[in-house]
Amino acid sequence: MKIPVVKQILSANDAIAGENQALFDAAGVTVINLMASPGAGKTSLILATAAHLPASVRPGVIEGDLASSIDADTIAARGIPVVQINTGGNCHLDAPMVRSALPHLPLEGIDLLFIENVGNLICPANFTLGAHANAVIASTPEGHDKPYKYPGMFASANAVVLNKADLIDVFEFDVDYFRRGIAMVNADAPLFIVSARTGEGVEDWIAWLQQTLERA
Amino acid sequence: MKIPVVKQILSANDAIAGENQALFDAAGVTVINLMASPGAGKTSLILATAAHLPASVRPGVIEGDLASSIDADTIAARGIPVVQINTGGNCHLDAPMVRSALPHLPLEGIDLLFIENVGNLICPANFTLGAHANAVIASTPEGHDKPYKYPGMFASANAVVLNKADLIDVFEFDVDYFRRGIAMVNADAPLFIVSARTGEGVEDWIAWLQQTLERA
Repeated sequence: MKIPVVKQILSANDAIAGENQALFDAAGVTVINLMASPGAGKTSLILATAAHLPASVRPGVIEGDLASSIDADTIAARGIPVVQINTGGNCHLDAPMVRSALPHLPLEGIDLLFIENVGNLICPANFTLGAHANAVIASTPEGHDKPYKYPGMFASANAVVLNKADLIDVFEFDVDYFRRGIAMVNADAPLFIVSARTGEGVEDWIAWLQQTLERA
Repeated sequence: MKIPVVKQILSANDAIAGENQALFDAAGVTVINLMASPGAGKTSLILATAAHLPASVRPGVIEGDLASSIDADTIAARGIPVVQINTGGNCHLDAPMVRSALPHLPLEGIDLLFIENVGNLICPANFTLGAHANAVIASTPEGHDKPYKYPGMFASANAVVLNKADLIDVFEFDVDYFRRGIAMVNADAPLFIVSARTGEGVEDWIAWLQQTLERA
């Protein structure tokens, strides 16, 4: 008697995420899913990164927000290809939303695509998009306890960026305590301490992006 | 022929929220649902408020976090009655969670109860808890565009607090632009510009709390 074997079925979201990644790979685009609290500096980090990338790495952006096109307007003004997704009330992007944005991007002219997720330190970690890596941005004004309070988000990260590092002293931010919090849930993710405003530390973050480009 | 009339049925959450409010009213407790991004300063504002309240107004706190009891420990160390709710992965408190916390609070010794919601500028606005008022805290490092990007949260507010006002210049925070953004979705909510760290502006916020106490 033949026993039927049922394989784990991907969720509809994961299935579409897999298709997204195949599309990205076919187009030679490496994709980073950027997640953070509101106001941590996702857009500022994208702009600082774009300003420091070698000319051979052409950036693009998918912007996720509940409402408005404020960040997409800022990015477009720098001449970077960008699509805005407005989620309505939804607290995260999902793979079908990302798919719907792709026809509006010149993928053949993009090497490194940032997906700026909705500002939220919880929900976005639960939805794959088809990105090659997840980066979580924290910022010094939020306080050094965030990995302890939002472990799921930090567990999902392939890299963590601590932004607004020029204000570490102003906010009495304890980097060691923050680092230990990340290590409790994520043994592998490197931590980059940067200031998108001053450019401090951006080159190490870019070196990691280039390694990710080479691996993808 | 008699036509059946079906009244709108409350959601299970709203029904329990109504029961919570009846319990609060019976105990003479006025309840404020505090909502904000991670790290905006919810706990710091509670502590600054408690330090400036008249002795006749006794505070208490329900702390909501995905994980940890970091904030509850801080509040307990100041001698304020506090209960921690850990939501696991949930991005907001709901009315049953608040109900489950009540047996652990000395309601007869509390006049003003702060429910510190999970750090999130989206989900918490969709769930009533039984509070008498919603207060949304924004902070200057998050940027002045938050009401435009997170309109649902600001629409839900009975009052908005702009915290970390001592850093308005550092973050080039445009208070008028922020105020116009709130007004687009919420004609009524007053704006209090405070610094929990320096105490600046806290007295106006406390005056609003006392009005809310008198109305409740």
